[in-house]
Amino acid sequence: MTFAERLAALCRERRSHVCVGLDPLPDRLPAAVRGADDPVFAFNRAIVDATLDLAPVYKPNLAFYEQLGLPGWTSLKKTVEYVAGRAIVIGDAKRGDIDSTAAAYARALFEVFGFDAGTVNAYQGADAVAPFLAYRDRGVFVLCRSSNRSAADLQDCRVGDQTVFERIASLAVTWNGAGNCGLVAGATYPAELGRVRAVAPGLPLLIPGVGAQGGDAAAAARAAAGGPFVISSSRGIMYAGDGPDFAEAARRAATRLRDEIAAA
Amino acid sequence: MTFAERLAALCRERRSHVCVGLDPLPDRLPAAVRGADDPVFAFNRAIVDATLDLAPVYKPNLAFYEQLGLPGWTSLKKTVEYVAGRAIVIGDAKRGDIDSTAAAYARALFEVFGFDAGTVNAYQGADAVAPFLAYRDRGVFVLCRSSNRSAADLQDCRVGDQTVFERIASLAVTWNGAGNCGLVAGATYPAELGRVRAVAPGLPLLIPGVGAQGGDAAAAARAAAGGPFVISSSRGIMYAGDGPDFAEAARRAATRLRDEIAAA
Repeated sequence: MTFAERLAALCRERRSHVCVGLDPLPDRLPAAVRGADDPVFAFNRAIVDATLDLAPVYKPNLAFYEQLGLPGWTSLKKTVEYVAGRAIVIGDAKRGDIDSTAAAYARALFEVFGFDAGTVNAYQGADAVAPFLAYRDRGVFVLCRSSNRSAADLQDCRVGDQTVFERIASLAVTWNGAGNCGLVAGATYPAELGRVRAVAPGLPLLIPGVGAQGGDAAAAARAAAGGPFVISSSRGIMYAGDGPDFAEAARRAATRLRDEIAAA
Repeated sequence: MTFAERLAALCRERRSHVCVGLDPLPDRLPAAVRGADDPVFAFNRAIVDATLDLAPVYKPNLAFYEQLGLPGWTSLKKTVEYVAGRAIVIGDAKRGDIDSTAAAYARALFEVFGFDAGTVNAYQGADAVAPFLAYRDRGVFVLCRSSNRSAADLQDCRVGDQTVFERIASLAVTWNGAGNCGLVAGATYPAELGRVRAVAPGLPLLIPGVGAQGGDAAAAARAAAGGPFVISSSRGIMYAGDGPDFAEAARRAATRLRDEIAAA
């Protein structure tokens, strides 16, 4: 079974295309977890416990752990181990470098942390992605058309008869020999997301940008149809509530997102 | 004094444009440091001690520490602290993400680790770089024309009357309000490096790709003239020798690189 098949099967089984972003902010942790030995892990665990049957995929963004220093890395490792085998865990790292260095980053993601998949930046071309793809059972989501406003600075520029992001999508199609290459495309620009799907019909799409960033989940789901996809919400789920019922609030937000996608 | 002025002044004072890459590989550590409590740090410290008067800049690539897990992060932090105030330390991280996430990465680089500068990937445009540049006393080297063979996959594509890498260089010029924005351009492609310098006349250049990657230091120095620059060698200096005299061998390699640049 390829990574793409595994992702599609888990979405079918869980009847959901929801990816829960696990991006903890120390100053927004609910009071209920602040007394724990490892408050960041306790928060993540509570969110996972409340959403596991609704979410085939979790996605910690490494930046939020890296900014906490060593305790952050420890919380992240515990989080990955906690979810392992019960959902797909994507390390949102956006790493990318020349071959030998990319190999070190791939080892960090897939061996040190044990992520099922990771996000990578392909600005440096095939070299920067190949060492990740060499882990044939892991997913590699290449940053393609991002959800932020300044994505257009480079990604929308025309190169020949394509945009830069379409060129990245075309390259990713050629890199998909093991069925483990996917693309990141934001929900905030559904027309561009549709172009990504058109260029890369069968590739898994990881779609951030709903919730705090304002993307429309239904429009994104329609644009992404035709291949496996998950739509990721971080702040919209994790910070749906900050009282003692924060986990139930997160569950309600995840349920709403699942249903919005299903209705589309 | 801006970051660019600080870099130029230190290069003048040390009469050197050498950047020593600190990319330790556990299985290539010299026997002399293997018995140390923290062999990776002991190796870095010996290399720094042997080269400090020759090197205004050191550049650990985070991938090589990340792949070691928590002990790697500890070795990295000790290395940055060891050099702090005696040379400029660039965190070669190639991070990049949307604004709030990029702010977390910037905190990690500049506050958790205390780097003087960092490398970033601008595929996501201005948003991805601004939070780093907001640390006005720190240097931000934007990946522009990389040293690897597949750099051409995207970076050499034409967008209008420029290549993609020239467009990144043009954007960086507009991002340089605090005099702290630089560019990464490889020594392996001196013609492209010259184009980067032409588009961004005063910006500091960080130039990897000599030594193991085969770039010509003299040609790179000629192409980079007209603004501050450092030429970085990692494997060529760190692994110049592996016997008990490994540090002296590193010093000889750094001296050779300094002199090759000066002769150009």
